[in-house]
Amino acid sequence: MVDVKISVGTAECFTHAKIGITIHKAASGYKDFEFKEIFDKEELRMMSNVRVLASMFIPSIYAAEKLLNIKLPEPDYDYAYAKAYTEKNDLKVAYLMAKGLKDILNCNIAIGTTAGIGRGGICILTDKNKYLFTTDVYGNLLKHENILERQRNGIEKGLRKFIEILKREYLHTSSF
Amino acid sequence: MVDVKISVGTAECFTHAKIGITIHKAASGYKDFEFKEIFDKEELRMMSNVRVLASMFIPSIYAAEKLLNIKLPEPDYDYAYAKAYTEKNDLKVAYLMAKGLKDILNCNIAIGTTAGIGRGGICILTDKNKYLFTTDVYGNLLKHENILERQRNGIEKGLRKFIEILKREYLHTSSF
Repeated sequence: MVDVKISVGTAECFTHAKIGITIHKAASGYKDFEFKEIFDKEELRMMSNVRVLASMFIPSIYAAEKLLNIKLPEPDYDYAYAKAYTEKNDLKVAYLMAKGLKDILNCNIAIGTTAGIGRGGICILTDKNKYLFTTDVYGNLLKHENILERQRNGIEKGLRKFIEILKREYLHTSSF
Repeated sequence: MVDVKISVGTAECFTHAKIGITIHKAASGYKDFEFKEIFDKEELRMMSNVRVLASMFIPSIYAAEKLLNIKLPEPDYDYAYAKAYTEKNDLKVAYLMAKGLKDILNCNIAIGTTAGIGRGGICILTDKNKYLFTTDVYGNLLKHENILERQRNGIEKGLRKFIEILKREYLHTSSF
């Protein structure tokens, strides 16, 4: 069976797999879902061209390396539960997670996210381009400072960028 | 660094990674979270012994095979977006997903879930035992029948079994 849909995979940390699961809900026609307000009517219709292959929450460096076949930097901070990086390394790690997933799944678009101390890092890799950006919210995982605010901003910003990229690179709609 | 926590990984389909993410929230001390009511006070304290390495939503057979290094049966139904099996095969596939993940992460407990036509399948693999069960809700992915009800039941039942197993096999508390 040939599947001509635009395939998407995500390897997320601080956004808890919610970018991928939201894309999945929009793509498979859920009537109501969290973050639906990010999409306008035309964008919701457009999403039927998308198919989510996997959306993963990976808080552990060890698991990210094993599952995504990558090598990550040593964490910048000692944090028992999960990885904790500075913003600079978060941007690197978000890219490495997206790249690892894209290589394994051979999907059109792969998204990686991680956030320790700083605004966090989000990477969207398409067949042509690499988009790397932070959230707009400073947070600190070790002090549990602004964690929920940064997460929400990261999910919303990640989704908005994804929609923008989808229109421009894959669907060539006139609105961009 | 030696980590003596009980490590957990999940590879979920119809439960949308929510079993793993809920365990993560309980384990890392979130104050409020969905499904918190499943845990009593003692169980919430107990959860600090647990660490979630990865919690994955994998709707696609192709992605499950690639990420978990397994081979899954052919789907029983033609369903463009994701895999769709009968209950009998869902139980098989839930086991295969849990087994694949446990082998890759070498974690103490691995959980797999999938649901097509029927009550769905949930597998919890520990270091000693295999637990395989369905939800209590018949659903049909192709007709979008009872999908949300089955999902909710699967998350709740999966979490309850997980807590029960954790107490009995790992923490040896007197309440079991």
